[in-house]
Amino acid sequence: MKFSLQQIADLIGGIVEGDTSAEVWDVAKIEEGKPGSISFLSNPKYEPEVYRTEATAVVVAKDFTPSQPISASLIRVEDPYVGFTQLLEAYAQQKSMAVSGIEEPSFLGEGSQVGDGHYRGAFSYIGKHCTIGNNVKIYPQAYIGDNVHIGDNTIIYSGAKIYADCVIGARCVLHAGAVIGSDGFGFAPQKDGTYKTIPQLGNVVLEDDVSVGANTTIDCATLGSTLVKQGTKLDNLVQVGHNVEIGKHTVMAAQVGIAGSATIGDQCMFGGQVGVGGHITVANGSKVGAQAAIPNDVKEENKNWLGSPIQPMRENIKSLMVFKSLPDLSKRVKQLEQKVLTLRDS
Amino acid sequence: MKFSLQQIADLIGGIVEGDTSAEVWDVAKIEEGKPGSISFLSNPKYEPEVYRTEATAVVVAKDFTPSQPISASLIRVEDPYVGFTQLLEAYAQQKSMAVSGIEEPSFLGEGSQVGDGHYRGAFSYIGKHCTIGNNVKIYPQAYIGDNVHIGDNTIIYSGAKIYADCVIGARCVLHAGAVIGSDGFGFAPQKDGTYKTIPQLGNVVLEDDVSVGANTTIDCATLGSTLVKQGTKLDNLVQVGHNVEIGKHTVMAAQVGIAGSATIGDQCMFGGQVGVGGHITVANGSKVGAQAAIPNDVKEENKNWLGSPIQPMRENIKSLMVFKSLPDLSKRVKQLEQKVLTLRDS
Amino acid sequence: MKFSLQQIADLIGGIVEGDTSAEVWDVAKIEEGKPGSISFLSNPKYEPEVYRTEATAVVVAKDFTPSQPISASLIRVEDPYVGFTQLLEAYAQQKSMAVSGIEEPSFLGEGSQVGDGHYRGAFSYIGKHCTIGNNVKIYPQAYIGDNVHIGDNTIIYSGAKIYADCVIGARCVLHAGAVIGSDGFGFAPQKDGTYKTIPQLGNVVLEDDVSVGANTTIDCATLGSTLVKQGTKLDNLVQVGHNVEIGKHTVMAAQVGIAGSATIGDQCMFGGQVGVGGHITVANGSKVGAQAAIPNDVKEENKNWLGSPIQPMRENIKSLMVFKSLPDLSKRVKQLEQKVLTLRDS
Repeated sequence: MKFSLQQIADLIGGIVEGDTSAEVWDVAKIEEGKPGSISFLSNPKYEPEVYRTEATAVVVAKDFTPSQPISASLIRVEDPYVGFTQLLEAYAQQKSMAVSGIEEPSFLGEGSQVGDGHYRGAFSYIGKHCTIGNNVKIYPQAYIGDNVHIGDNTIIYSGAKIYADCVIGARCVLHAGAVIGSDGFGFAPQKDGTYKTIPQLGNVVLEDDVSVGANTTIDCATLGSTLVKQGTKLDNLVQVGHNVEIGKHTVMAAQVGIAGSATIGDQCMFGGQVGVGGHITVANGSKVGAQAAIPNDVKEENKNWLGSPIQPMRENIKSLMVFKSLPDLSKRVKQLEQKVLTLRDS
Repeated sequence: MKFSLQQIADLIGGIVEGDTSAEVWDVAKIEEGKPGSISFLSNPKYEPEVYRTEATAVVVAKDFTPSQPISASLIRVEDPYVGFTQLLEAYAQQKSMAVSGIEEPSFLGEGSQVGDGHYRGAFSYIGKHCTIGNNVKIYPQAYIGDNVHIGDNTIIYSGAKIYADCVIGARCVLHAGAVIGSDGFGFAPQKDGTYKTIPQLGNVVLEDDVSVGANTTIDCATLGSTLVKQGTKLDNLVQVGHNVEIGKHTVMAAQVGIAGSATIGDQCMFGGQVGVGGHITVANGSKVGAQAAIPNDVKEENKNWLGSPIQPMRENIKSLMVFKSLPDLSKRVKQLEQKVLTLRDS
Repeated sequence: MKFSLQQIADLIGGIVEGDTSAEVWDVAKIEEGKPGSISFLSNPKYEPEVYRTEATAVVVAKDFTPSQPISASLIRVEDPYVGFTQLLEAYAQQKSMAVSGIEEPSFLGEGSQVGDGHYRGAFSYIGKHCTIGNNVKIYPQAYIGDNVHIGDNTIIYSGAKIYADCVIGARCVLHAGAVIGSDGFGFAPQKDGTYKTIPQLGNVVLEDDVSVGANTTIDCATLGSTLVKQGTKLDNLVQVGHNVEIGKHTVMAAQVGIAGSATIGDQCMFGGQVGVGGHITVANGSKVGAQAAIPNDVKEENKNWLGSPIQPMRENIKSLMVFKSLPDLSKRVKQLEQKVLTLRDS
């Protein structure tokens, strides 16, 4: 997609200084600007870059006074950072939402309905009796099983898989390879040492504005629903077990694992590779550092946690400080023992 | 799929009290029952729910005497929990095994044979010279490379990938996005600091009744076979390196990683995010807690392990207890040193 | 693929002793040799196996003198290990590079160009305006978004996904389910407790000879490029965040996670499940043990690290030794306190 500088100035409420008909098709950091790209100057530290950038255009402050000649055209706005952010959002919106229509071959099962403005990429699969909202973008090789419901403006990237009976809200994003609704890990040990599979008959419900990272897996409930509430964001390679419930506006970094039937509160933040045990409840607003393990309920809200198993963050940091000098501590205890022996003998 | 209450009663050996021709098409917890669903009452604690459930039918004990009117139809059986479990199993069986036939387009390579009762979803791919048993269900976008053998009644969910030459047993389940037979991670360091790829020519063998979770990866052997023995269950996002051997009826939770050439015994249980080093042997019946690391051989059978690196579970718990109070211990050692100094000086 | 023993002898510079026209189609360990397979004898320890192997042929040393009759044909070479390795490499090369041509249906977007000798498997997808080099092998169900560039001799296995605008070098290997260019995990917290998505407009650049494991995920940059430099090898289920830069000839084992904007040096080696914090710099030649966490910059080159958080390896091992005996240390401190009390009272 190409835009003229005038189009961009209109979009972000700015004034072009230079060639209004020049076109750009890429955004770049100012130090990496190439012909055809647009950049911005907000932090004065980067001012020297504006004199040597090869970018076609730079968004600058209304009152910016160059001290040297500039080859790029300028677009002057009140706040260049805000203006550039508006531009990025408009560009991203267009990039992800621009696709529409149906590429063939693609598969649409009987009794399924798809709303207006949708995209169905080649080799995408929609099962039977699905209801799919308006402006839903289904990329190539995505899979949607039978009886799935998907809300408006949701994006399903290439190769994401949604098992039968799952419910996906509006404005959700499922990245490539995400798996929604795979069987929960339920096996009942038998007397002969083998395992019997416990049927997994529930589904997964993602509320509105949920984001699911690439190759993240969310298991269906044994009965009922595994639930991810509104606005929650899961990074890549996260594991969510069967019957888990994750609250609203919670953020989990990559490779977090949540065991079955755990309940995570609203507004939590988990660092990468955190593990949560089965049937655990974690209070609202909990902030948990990377690689931590949560084996028991967290009942107090809005606290910071660290460690495997977790401790209050400050306590864990203090314990880790001593841990690093344990060989010294051990030596000092040995010396004390010898001194005390000497004292007793004296 | 809809079932009449009479059909269900016949299936689980019960007697209908109410409308035998009423139909249900879903199973639900009693407190979440909706018209069209069937539930069960086993624990007396939940008796109040039976009087307000909207479920169409509830499975109850033979001798259950209601103390209030019930709108749902009842199905009376000897043991409601057992009866309901039978029902779930029959339902799950039907749900996963009901699909059959061939959706187009799908790809079948020359010289490949597929047994009776199979399902091949749209955009599924079967390479050359494969032998695939009866009742195998291959979901849309699954990939099966050349010369693969798959036993009867195995289910390959959407987007699972099986590289050439692998062998999959009977009654296995491969969840969406699982990868079987990718190249082992073998690179020989060269004098100039680069790496040369070591050819990976072996395969993966999954014996009967093996379950592989969503997006789990099992690498092929360098030579010979990476082997997962009968009845073993791997959860989602598990990594199994090249030339690994995992015994019978072993269970591994999500995000476990097993490095190349490790040998894991029968009847082991690993918690989530456990790591096992390369060329390590882990004895039969080992139980390993979440996030543990196994850097050396585990020779004693049937023991519980915890920690990174592992210790016997009780010892690790005791060490962790002291770890939490390390700042205090450190302070006490400092005080002792001062006191001992005072004593010597006195 | 079948080869006559004469063909193999020509390939590795050997002399056949036996039936030169006998054919083999598999390689095997000598103790697992079956008719149709070729093996080798290098370590004298395995000599007894050569007398009972069922392999069709065995590669042996020029001067090997059997002490018993051997049913297999022999191929005599200077160094059997080197000869066998040459054979494996030739076989692996043929196996992965032998495929060519186009299987239908496959999708090729307008304005995209694909070089000579390529393979495009069924249900593979190539978007618009892509440039794809010679001898590139694109397996079934692989996805390549718009404007992607791929160098010569690269292999994209089944179901790997490359988002729009990414650049993949020559001789790269992307294993099944790998995701290149998914959105970085960027969400700006708002005053009302919700999160706003930060547009992710950059791409991923993989230089030449990079290997990406099965189901590994590499996020695109917010702006600019997430960069993996020449010759670097990533194992399965690795997470690489947005704007990360990984140096040349670095090796990362499975399930490593690198948070956004981290910079990893050349020639590093990371064990499995290592985590690296955001915006961290790790010096060239760093060797980091499994499950370690790197929360701060590593400035010294070529050092060994271990622990969560990391310490120099030897120090961590010493601290872990004391950790295991912490209950004893704690008890000894208590005893000292009592003794010192007694001494003061005496």
